[in-house]
Amino acid sequence: MYETVALDDESKQIIIIDQTKLPNERRLLRLSLVSEFYEAIYLLQVRGAPAIGVFAGFAMYLCACSIKADNNDEFYAEFKKQKDYLNSSRPTAVNLSWALGRMENVVLAHRYAPIPLILDELRNEALKIRQEDEDACRKIGENALTLLKPGYGLLTHCNAGALATSKYGTATSAMYLGHERGYDFHIYCDETRPLLQGARLTAYELSEAGMDVTLQCDNMVGALMASGKIDAVLVGCDRVAANGDTANKIGTSVVAMVAKHYNIPFYVCGPMSTIDAGIKSGADIPIEERKGEEVTSMWYERPMAPSGIKIFNPAFDVTDHSLITAIITETGIYYPPFSFAR
Amino acid sequence: MYETVALDDESKQIIIIDQTKLPNERRLLRLSLVSEFYEAIYLLQVRGAPAIGVFAGFAMYLCACSIKADNNDEFYAEFKKQKDYLNSSRPTAVNLSWALGRMENVVLAHRYAPIPLILDELRNEALKIRQEDEDACRKIGENALTLLKPGYGLLTHCNAGALATSKYGTATSAMYLGHERGYDFHIYCDETRPLLQGARLTAYELSEAGMDVTLQCDNMVGALMASGKIDAVLVGCDRVAANGDTANKIGTSVVAMVAKHYNIPFYVCGPMSTIDAGIKSGADIPIEERKGEEVTSMWYERPMAPSGIKIFNPAFDVTDHSLITAIITETGIYYPPFSFAR
Repeated sequence: MYETVALDDESKQIIIIDQTKLPNERRLLRLSLVSEFYEAIYLLQVRGAPAIGVFAGFAMYLCACSIKADNNDEFYAEFKKQKDYLNSSRPTAVNLSWALGRMENVVLAHRYAPIPLILDELRNEALKIRQEDEDACRKIGENALTLLKPGYGLLTHCNAGALATSKYGTATSAMYLGHERGYDFHIYCDETRPLLQGARLTAYELSEAGMDVTLQCDNMVGALMASGKIDAVLVGCDRVAANGDTANKIGTSVVAMVAKHYNIPFYVCGPMSTIDAGIKSGADIPIEERKGEEVTSMWYERPMAPSGIKIFNPAFDVTDHSLITAIITETGIYYPPFSFAR
Repeated sequence: MYETVALDDESKQIIIIDQTKLPNERRLLRLSLVSEFYEAIYLLQVRGAPAIGVFAGFAMYLCACSIKADNNDEFYAEFKKQKDYLNSSRPTAVNLSWALGRMENVVLAHRYAPIPLILDELRNEALKIRQEDEDACRKIGENALTLLKPGYGLLTHCNAGALATSKYGTATSAMYLGHERGYDFHIYCDETRPLLQGARLTAYELSEAGMDVTLQCDNMVGALMASGKIDAVLVGCDRVAANGDTANKIGTSVVAMVAKHYNIPFYVCGPMSTIDAGIKSGADIPIEERKGEEVTSMWYERPMAPSGIKIFNPAFDVTDHSLITAIITETGIYYPPFSFAR
């Protein structure tokens, strides 16, 4: 398993795997400049909401280390400037602004302390964000594993894996833990058009970990479930409404409907921070539409559709709570009717 | 609309659009040698079961024209040799052997007639196969159109279009007829992984015909139907069992399950020749699995999955009859419980 985002405190660098190069090339990037941090997020070299949060914590710590300031006010002004700059790299990823905010709060809480002490506190906070994410993912995996049996065929969609978090992943956490414990799962990965995170990232990280992995196109989920190969579905989530409606990568709701048809359990995995109690139902979750070139041209040798054709390219869909068997977080397993008291 | 397969009797050539080059290049091929006919089928330059049948009829006529024989026995021996050669080009396409068999029967029925008369009869039979296909497709369209209203949003999967038949297509026939009559349909095409027939062929032929066409990835069907944009689904079929279970391009059953969830009518369109009364249910229909490279490497600049990964790549799936609103053929509209007396 990877350390998706690692801090090398001695050289004052963040080490990441360049996810845009997977699976053809495993290239490690060592980043130390704020412009490099910005670019890594913007270009999706680091991706996955939890991983971006962890990366942002380390990034702000290293930015702070390199600030040359005569006094605390100068220090904070420069810190704030670099934080705002990083925050503009990907405005939709909620974990980015959340992690940057936590780092800023550390500076504000120690506004008049000696700067070396502030740097220590920033490093501690960044490591804490990372550790909290790892702990949550591991607990999600332990909880999910209680629902699975050795030899199960497991289907996942997109990448809610170690590459999207600091370790273990959310949907994949029980796969890693089960693999360590000899569960002999058979993992099936949807390729996940248009950006192919399932083929490029999930199939990659799970097969590298030594698991039995099979890849298929998204539209093969009907044939796959009809064949009897799948015992349970595990997916991640980007936002869960109070009633359990779940926004996740495009295609997730389709998998859920097919699972329902074949009476296969459909589990949503994510940390409690993904549950948005302020949103009543999925109808209130805005769905981002992305540019059509992702569908017609990206990855391809040449365009695979007539030029000028209209494209429908939503990045997410909402899975109705009626299709979800259980929602698994670090605090437990939630069954319908969903209620997420902590 | 195209004449997908045309006979130029004067130059003794078949004219087809090279479907492997679409949508980037509209290249017409003029074919006159039996080796070229073989290659066109083998390389999928002509594809779609009905279109292959029509092509095979023209091909055998032109093969017969070029035979140099001293007597009828020599003529038939050479005819049979070329027929067997063409039949080996794509053994799974049932329309190929069916059309070749019809052509052979013409020769056998006129075994001792003057050869110029046999050639006339062969041309007539080939034109008849073509005309029968066009007539069936048109009638399927007329029947389907009675179920649709102006302004409807229509979803289709793969290519059951003019490019897969001699004209009109099956699933697309009502779209062409409605377009001629000002129905202002909004057509949505699934790209249809892994071979992208929806993006490359259906989106191409319908937009060339001037229709309002939108393309999306297969896994977007949930978001698409949730949005309220789709009023009916029209798909083709490769084989229909006696109980209505329908084998069609991979992903079709997934569309049907999502349509069921959203209470959207799901119509299967095909000629009566597609209904296989000898097959009781879909469980008896064998599903062809194809090579994994179609999923991981085809069309792409470089492989999009880790090397050596296992691939599940069935070319078809079976849509359960319980998910089908009606099956539309040239003889009428069949509702459940399905019974196909002619």
